[in-house]
Amino acid sequence: MTRYRAADLIDFTTALFAAAGMDGDKPATVAEILVEADLMGHDTHGLALAPNYLKEIGTGAMRATGEPEVLSDHKAALLWDARRLSGVWITAKAIDIACERARDYGVATVSVRESHHIACLAAYLTRATNRGQVVVIASSDPAVASVAPFGGLDPVFTPDPFAVGIPTTRDPILIDMSSSITTNGMAGRLNANGEHFPGKWAQDHAGNATNDPRILFEEPKGSLLPTGGHDHGHKGYGMALVVESLSQGLSGDKRAPQPGYWGAAIFIQIFEPEAFAGRAVFTDATSELVSLCHASRPAVGVEKVRLPGERALARKHDAMRHGLALYPGIIDKLAPWAETFGVAMPATI
Amino acid sequence: MTRYRAADLIDFTTALFAAAGMDGDKPATVAEILVEADLMGHDTHGLALAPNYLKEIGTGAMRATGEPEVLSDHKAALLWDARRLSGVWITAKAIDIACERARDYGVATVSVRESHHIACLAAYLTRATNRGQVVVIASSDPAVASVAPFGGLDPVFTPDPFAVGIPTTRDPILIDMSSSITTNGMAGRLNANGEHFPGKWAQDHAGNATNDPRILFEEPKGSLLPTGGHDHGHKGYGMALVVESLSQGLSGDKRAPQPGYWGAAIFIQIFEPEAFAGRAVFTDATSELVSLCHASRPAVGVEKVRLPGERALARKHDAMRHGLALYPGIIDKLAPWAETFGVAMPATI
Repeated sequence: MTRYRAADLIDFTTALFAAAGMDGDKPATVAEILVEADLMGHDTHGLALAPNYLKEIGTGAMRATGEPEVLSDHKAALLWDARRLSGVWITAKAIDIACERARDYGVATVSVRESHHIACLAAYLTRATNRGQVVVIASSDPAVASVAPFGGLDPVFTPDPFAVGIPTTRDPILIDMSSSITTNGMAGRLNANGEHFPGKWAQDHAGNATNDPRILFEEPKGSLLPTGGHDHGHKGYGMALVVESLSQGLSGDKRAPQPGYWGAAIFIQIFEPEAFAGRAVFTDATSELVSLCHASRPAVGVEKVRLPGERALARKHDAMRHGLALYPGIIDKLAPWAETFGVAMPATI
Repeated sequence: MTRYRAADLIDFTTALFAAAGMDGDKPATVAEILVEADLMGHDTHGLALAPNYLKEIGTGAMRATGEPEVLSDHKAALLWDARRLSGVWITAKAIDIACERARDYGVATVSVRESHHIACLAAYLTRATNRGQVVVIASSDPAVASVAPFGGLDPVFTPDPFAVGIPTTRDPILIDMSSSITTNGMAGRLNANGEHFPGKWAQDHAGNATNDPRILFEEPKGSLLPTGGHDHGHKGYGMALVVESLSQGLSGDKRAPQPGYWGAAIFIQIFEPEAFAGRAVFTDATSELVSLCHASRPAVGVEKVRLPGERALARKHDAMRHGLALYPGIIDKLAPWAETFGVAMPATI
């Protein structure tokens, strides 16, 4: 299996985004976060997105240069208009600033409107947990709808992901979940491969639960089900309303269908445990949760109870040692861009 | 069916808690929140709790008088030790203070350790939404475990509720959900009535999914399943870790089994939309979400798509007009306490 050094993939992707016109630290930041997603195994939301990002820079749908507009600054509460800049760069930048502000104010919140797509939420979390801070990221795309409200047939929401990074005394807990059972990215991949969801995670146009992702791509279209599905989907429905209200309501984005438009309203929050009971006390409590989960006897067919992020961090560790094997097709779709821009393909190992 | 005026039930319950020794505004605040829960139809977490609260005051397990200890005050981030005072009163008080602080700082967070039980999270939400603010409440009981981590057999968490109140231009969205599919309160009621859950919301000691609540009360004991159940319970597992980390980690509470101990670690956060894109912009976006959900065609067997809190607010409206019919048995269990304290029973209408 073809493997790459992570650093080589980051350099390669940085060169592509720089050649496409991104200024300053944007190419390197976007490359680093996309490769981080692949390292963690979230391969629908890593370098697989790069060709489409490059295309959007070309059409002007993603702005390549400049800064977000600061619409308000209440010190612990910031509002930015991202002006269609890369959502990956904006999110990383917002986290860094919120981490600084949280040191002074205990909690810092950044609300962002009019961003481009933000890729894999899990890939940002260690930026904050490495500083001993807790991070929350939530995001929605106000232009698109694929997830139905509980009891409804017509989709209203995007999968509305929600991620939380939690420091412990050892590896952080890295939670990244959508408010729907599965994502558009996973549905697209399974559909392209002629495969099915492992459960009835979608419904057809008439509301019949199904494991067939085709219902999202063929008319009359169905929709993704909120977390809990037909049994207790009021839970995922509630999560979606929270994610959309915090990401769109606070920032001033608002649902409005725009076919083909790819954007994000973003909510970012950082907690500094030192402003509460202290960092050592915080990680003592969270490490106790980790120990209790690890000690819970596994059910039949389960090797051991894992913490969210545990498998992803193990994957990353392995890929850093032995090289990263990209999901099939990803590198082939980047090759034409490398040729266009005269960028050398990354070395294989 | 016997009905009561809400005001009479509040006066009655206020008199009971005052007679039991609660000082200041505690009796009236606790009575108001408990009756609010019954008005909204959350009748496992309303006046049904009052007899046990009165018992805990009697044993000293709930402290009846005094103030929380302020352990730190970073203006937008507060830490309190509740010193085993009523969690209902503490939560209402923390929300009121956070609403004031959020006006100045955009977002205000109150973290509480060593509280007594906090009852129904949904019943507090309009305290903030009536002021045009967004409220988040999360709570866990570090002494008790009934919910298993995904893939595990031994319980680690409490149901770990999480509630969010979201203002719109009309009725607020009132979300109140547990990280587990169902709650201990519901399991207890169904078990007492010999009834079953509507779905496979629990697992027996060997990990078999079941709709029988008895497995929580008979040895060898089973556990409640996280939201998503055996199919996608990593979602509820993630929610539980977030709720426990924010409520216990920030406050300095920590998991430690204490049989019979009834407590809560609490996380409260208020957002002032005016510090972001503004109140009118916020409610414009959230009202659009409400309109889109209402417009989603209902599935077969569903009358209409409802927003979280819609049914509860309609129930409350009806109960305020026609009187409140308490769930069977609630008033009978309060009668001995009324006799003990020489408090007149509430009039029926």
